Amino acid sequence: MATAPKLDLMADQGRTIDPAEEAAFLDAIDRWLERRVIPVVMHHDHNDIWPAELVAEMAEMGLFGATIGQQYGGLGLPATTYAKIVMKISSYWMAITGIFNSHLIMAAAVERFGTPEQKAKWLPKFATGEIRGGLALTEPNAGTDLQAIRTVARRDGDHYVINGTKTWISNALNGSCFALLVKTDPDASPRYKGMSLFIADKRDGFTTGKKFDKLGYKSIDSAELVFQDYRAPADQLIGGVEGQGFFQATGGLELGRINVAARGVGLSEGSLRLATQYAQERHTMGKPIAEHQAIQLKLGEMVTRARAARLLTLDAAEAYDRGDRCDMEAGMAKYFASEAAVENSQEAMRIYGGYSYSKEYDIERYYRDSLLMCIGEGTNEMQRMIIAKQWLKMNPA
Amino acid sequence: MATAPKLDLMADQGRTIDPAEEAAFLDAIDRWLERRVIPVVMHHDHNDIWPAELVAEMAEMGLFGATIGQQYGGLGLPATTYAKIVMKISSYWMAITGIFNSHLIMAAAVERFGTPEQKAKWLPKFATGEIRGGLALTEPNAGTDLQAIRTVARRDGDHYVINGTKTWISNALNGSCFALLVKTDPDASPRYKGMSLFIADKRDGFTTGKKFDKLGYKSIDSAELVFQDYRAPADQLIGGVEGQGFFQATGGLELGRINVAARGVGLSEGSLRLATQYAQERHTMGKPIAEHQAIQLKLGEMVTRARAARLLTLDAAEAYDRGDRCDMEAGMAKYFASEAAVENSQEAMRIYGGYSYSKEYDIERYYRDSLLMCIGEGTNEMQRMIIAKQWLKMNPA
Amino acid sequence: MATAPKLDLMADQGRTIDPAEEAAFLDAIDRWLERRVIPVVMHHDHNDIWPAELVAEMAEMGLFGATIGQQYGGLGLPATTYAKIVMKISSYWMAITGIFNSHLIMAAAVERFGTPEQKAKWLPKFATGEIRGGLALTEPNAGTDLQAIRTVARRDGDHYVINGTKTWISNALNGSCFALLVKTDPDASPRYKGMSLFIADKRDGFTTGKKFDKLGYKSIDSAELVFQDYRAPADQLIGGVEGQGFFQATGGLELGRINVAARGVGLSEGSLRLATQYAQERHTMGKPIAEHQAIQLKLGEMVTRARAARLLTLDAAEAYDRGDRCDMEAGMAKYFASEAAVENSQEAMRIYGGYSYSKEYDIERYYRDSLLMCIGEGTNEMQRMIIAKQWLKMNPA
Amino acid sequence: MATAPKLDLMADQGRTIDPAEEAAFLDAIDRWLERRVIPVVMHHDHNDIWPAELVAEMAEMGLFGATIGQQYGGLGLPATTYAKIVMKISSYWMAITGIFNSHLIMAAAVERFGTPEQKAKWLPKFATGEIRGGLALTEPNAGTDLQAIRTVARRDGDHYVINGTKTWISNALNGSCFALLVKTDPDASPRYKGMSLFIADKRDGFTTGKKFDKLGYKSIDSAELVFQDYRAPADQLIGGVEGQGFFQATGGLELGRINVAARGVGLSEGSLRLATQYAQERHTMGKPIAEHQAIQLKLGEMVTRARAARLLTLDAAEAYDRGDRCDMEAGMAKYFASEAAVENSQEAMRIYGGYSYSKEYDIERYYRDSLLMCIGEGTNEMQRMIIAKQWLKMNPA
Repeated sequence: MATAPKLDLMADQGRTIDPAEEAAFLDAIDRWLERRVIPVVMHHDHNDIWPAELVAEMAEMGLFGATIGQQYGGLGLPATTYAKIVMKISSYWMAITGIFNSHLIMAAAVERFGTPEQKAKWLPKFATGEIRGGLALTEPNAGTDLQAIRTVARRDGDHYVINGTKTWISNALNGSCFALLVKTDPDASPRYKGMSLFIADKRDGFTTGKKFDKLGYKSIDSAELVFQDYRAPADQLIGGVEGQGFFQATGGLELGRINVAARGVGLSEGSLRLATQYAQERHTMGKPIAEHQAIQLKLGEMVTRARAARLLTLDAAEAYDRGDRCDMEAGMAKYFASEAAVENSQEAMRIYGGYSYSKEYDIERYYRDSLLMCIGEGTNEMQRMIIAKQWLKMNPA
Repeated sequence: MATAPKLDLMADQGRTIDPAEEAAFLDAIDRWLERRVIPVVMHHDHNDIWPAELVAEMAEMGLFGATIGQQYGGLGLPATTYAKIVMKISSYWMAITGIFNSHLIMAAAVERFGTPEQKAKWLPKFATGEIRGGLALTEPNAGTDLQAIRTVARRDGDHYVINGTKTWISNALNGSCFALLVKTDPDASPRYKGMSLFIADKRDGFTTGKKFDKLGYKSIDSAELVFQDYRAPADQLIGGVEGQGFFQATGGLELGRINVAARGVGLSEGSLRLATQYAQERHTMGKPIAEHQAIQLKLGEMVTRARAARLLTLDAAEAYDRGDRCDMEAGMAKYFASEAAVENSQEAMRIYGGYSYSKEYDIERYYRDSLLMCIGEGTNEMQRMIIAKQWLKMNPA
Repeated sequence: MATAPKLDLMADQGRTIDPAEEAAFLDAIDRWLERRVIPVVMHHDHNDIWPAELVAEMAEMGLFGATIGQQYGGLGLPATTYAKIVMKISSYWMAITGIFNSHLIMAAAVERFGTPEQKAKWLPKFATGEIRGGLALTEPNAGTDLQAIRTVARRDGDHYVINGTKTWISNALNGSCFALLVKTDPDASPRYKGMSLFIADKRDGFTTGKKFDKLGYKSIDSAELVFQDYRAPADQLIGGVEGQGFFQATGGLELGRINVAARGVGLSEGSLRLATQYAQERHTMGKPIAEHQAIQLKLGEMVTRARAARLLTLDAAEAYDRGDRCDMEAGMAKYFASEAAVENSQEAMRIYGGYSYSKEYDIERYYRDSLLMCIGEGTNEMQRMIIAKQWLKMNPA
Repeated sequence: MATAPKLDLMADQGRTIDPAEEAAFLDAIDRWLERRVIPVVMHHDHNDIWPAELVAEMAEMGLFGATIGQQYGGLGLPATTYAKIVMKISSYWMAITGIFNSHLIMAAAVERFGTPEQKAKWLPKFATGEIRGGLALTEPNAGTDLQAIRTVARRDGDHYVINGTKTWISNALNGSCFALLVKTDPDASPRYKGMSLFIADKRDGFTTGKKFDKLGYKSIDSAELVFQDYRAPADQLIGGVEGQGFFQATGGLELGRINVAARGVGLSEGSLRLATQYAQERHTMGKPIAEHQAIQLKLGEMVTRARAARLLTLDAAEAYDRGDRCDMEAGMAKYFASEAAVENSQEAMRIYGGYSYSKEYDIERYYRDSLLMCIGEGTNEMQRMIIAKQWLKMNPA
């Protein structure tokens, strides 16, 4: 899978891993899931509790540095391995992957675009999980249209004074540091030229709202971040130059989509696993329901869908690791795998029948969590239009 | 819509209503929904609280006697009017229709099959809501295969001694009386000939489990009923003759399916209403999202689906009111309208985008409630097979 | 179903029919289908032959005057009855409904918008089928955007001189008269104000291209109409006043959509009928395939879909007959019923298995004919957007 | 991709190819398609003409020996390369892949199971295309249930006398040799033990019916084979031992499914290619329709679906080449890719709008050809049940 080096590789592209090493790591994840995660997921999810112990264990396993370079103390995993980890964990509990995922996209922004001093200062702490955080991009009135944000940073000596509000920020309460997108020049035209990205650590002027109560994706803390005359040291402007923020923030989109796709694969495979078990245990008319054609038709479709989702996701991740342009591939993976998650979780619910509604079973969590994959990181309708535009560009009449 | 009387009409078939009277009743429901229900639904649903005040008001409006004959103090509404009421309420809060619906199916069993004494004794109290209850059919190991139940009633003088457990019983905790399906002859062959239906009021030997924690259909109390040497007076055997229970219990299936269909219509229309509002209020790229083709394509489909669901449901209800056989029609309505509810609620979620996951909005409740319509009263897969069998019987090669 | 008269009824709205009379007419159609149509459809369709004898018989039955007023010698049928006729015929051979359908829309344009002299002169001949024809609206570069047509009529004394080309015109070769949409003022703004509709009978300057070879919708002659210095008498300008053409041409859209919907219903029901027969006759593993769950699941869905399509279509037709605005209803019926036709014909193909591909069976014709219903009279994507816009207008935020 | 040799590899498993060599071969195919195939496909398809010249050219390129070992004069291609060839050709004209495909499965039966003498005698002639043929398995009353066939071979000295009829046999008229499945012991129990497979070359007693007229898959000759006292030399019993026929015939199922999957991929990609071109060329409302969201939503979905189909198909082919068990993978590829072909061709039809029905455009052929992929080699419903059963076996509760 090794490819010729390319000059313009992102800091986290071009990586490879020894298959045996990858297998060992995935095995370790398996054991952790079985011993530590499975027994507690329902309690945390139902009560919307942040899993402090599991977070500490994820830090120990190195997950907060999974995609950070080894020179900074990270594991330096390629996107394919990382996607497999996310698939595996998500097949049991999707929400906790959000704790390290948006953290790692923040870290990637620093590793790709930061100054040498910024990398040296922040990445080692990100890698150990000593500092954890996420992305602070979206605002109440600027969902998918990032260029419409209103948070403003005004230069004031060797600081920037930042005012504005970010919403739906993952890890808002338990994280301490965020990649914060602002306007340094609100009047710039085109608008994206006036945008900058900061490393915003919690300090005076940075407060958080209360945890959002959500349908699914429980336990992880999504909340508002409020910046009131927040003073960010100028050396926390990522890359040290204003006007690069839009590019820096959207530079993580490919990996972000691969990550959502991997979660979708996990949810698809997890729903299938639960349905497979139940269909063999549950008897009606004197035989396991798995022996009825109506159930087999569902299972055959679910197996195929989950497999296609996995192949598309690894296809995009491999392109990423090769350093190839892969925005269309990542978009296809995100779109397909998230829809697969919704369909497989819904079909599993139908296989469970009435029991699917009981919170004593896990399957209802998959149903609550799945649709978010279709909606997050750009709705799938937008995703399809982006795929189409890229495709048309590649295939002019 | 008046039809010639038929000799074999069920007690609640053949009814008509003056259109003006129907309109007035529906208007009253509208006002009640607006003033009393809408302001409190979110609080009750999120906290899984049984709406005691609303129940009292439903009783005042006569809903607990909606389909009970006027000679017993009920409103004596035809199925079409009743379906419209259920649609309307379900478009705001589906769960509360469950409080009077399974109660009314219990009442219908008494009104259709009870002895004159039973009708005189029980129906007036059912109609006012003084006694409220539901159906006690399903058991842990006998979901859709009713004939596999294990609850047994043994004659003992002028009583029957009943032992067994019923599960997923609506109104289990707040209801006080249930139509209880048992085996009076566990060895009968075919099995259905050994089944009987009792009016089982709460008394010694009748205990309930704890309220099930569910994904949706919150607030209404679903729980186990446990019968341990419960002594039912012999005059509470519906119809007074053993062996009629299977027929009596399944005699309500048509109306039960029409009711689920009506709930599905309500959920479809309610999801559409919310999506329509949001799509006009939410702006991206400088215009309401309702002006984007991608959103219009969804809305056009949702409108059509909701309309088809409504037409199929009224079509079945009209056949019911005419006294025509309508099991296939009721099955089609149930199947189509419940799928419409799932699809419309999911599409509405996508239109809401990220906000759909916030419990500050209502739409997530529709998403949690809808799938139950597909699963309850026989899964839709079973429904489709039943429709096919009836169709084949009507259309032999 | 009688309603109070409305002042602005179209000439063909507000009609009713005695149910017995309707039933008798539909019975006559049934017998004709059985005796005359079914034996010859395959031969005509496979060889793309125009069914001259059937056309004569349709004229005898009055079908060319089905929706023309009785005062002009037509049957004066309401839209509901007409839709039922179209459903019935289309369930055996959809294409032949096209022979009288676009003819009747041409006639409706004259009956609704023509001068008294035009009605008196043309309608009686249209009603008997002495003159048959259709609509000449679409042009090569103006598919759904009617206002982009380029055919021009220039006034010259008591004639108009018309130049231009129309394409995909049904009945082009066998019809002798068309409702021809032109620009009388090509520079008008807005464009639609410069459009007029003519009764264009075949005469000098009016030639036709060769019959299009099509995937389906065979036998009926679709071709180009070419007008070169064609001189139309000024008294063939429908309504006698220029600038009304766009309104007159689109005034038939509702009925046009109801008609396509009715064809979709016929194709859905016909596909279901064939599949039902085959599933009972074809045996595998020692039993009719109709006894396999996989087949029953399909049939149950097909029955429901066909029923919903029928109800939506009659719902729109009833609104039409009442004189209510029904463009949204007609659009929903067209959209749903055409999709139902495609799905049911495809499912029937799957039930036939390999034999579906043999031209010795009828089912492949349904597969070839159905998709046209989705594409014609405005694609279903456009239909959905139109429905959405109407819905939004009716439900402002 | 090289793997350790396995003892039980089929004769055509375990192969590899140099990537450059594969690319060169695929390029040659491309040039041939462009120069020779594209200009003539419409004429042959519309007139159902067998493409004699193209067949000669396919023979020259070695396609009739594509998967036959090099020691017998074949190209010895691995399944992955072969699948890519089939995808490419099918993206322009699916039907012609049928000419060499069933031929190659016949050849594979000989190469895998034949005696050394049989291989030496027949394979070189198969490889050059001097002898071409196919599979003769299905009978009128034994579609997917192969064990229900009635063709019987009775030993008579050093010959077998064979009587029976095979139907829907590809290459029936233009092929001269078939792998013929018979019963050598009609009374065997279980039935499959009485089945044998013969090399049946055309000679006395072997006649053919007339070419079937089909909806799609035109040009290729599908017909009945009739055996009346046909005398097959005993040394044409494949493998030389009776009772192996069922195993030998179904041994080709994996490769058969991979092949149908590859055709589905080709049809999916070809439909997408046509739709992509048309959407950029066709203008409405002053811009290419590719700029409308409604079209982009379709294209984005079509691109993704085609990609997933390709990945699943190569995934199965790679497993095959590794010598891994891959029946489930092949089934998933067949199921998904064939459905993708139907959906993409239908969506392309909708993008073409009314013009899709004109036989002057290619897209209608894709629509006619695609559904056969879902129905052939076992319907997709059966496929899903088979996938489910294999999955359940691998994942016991």
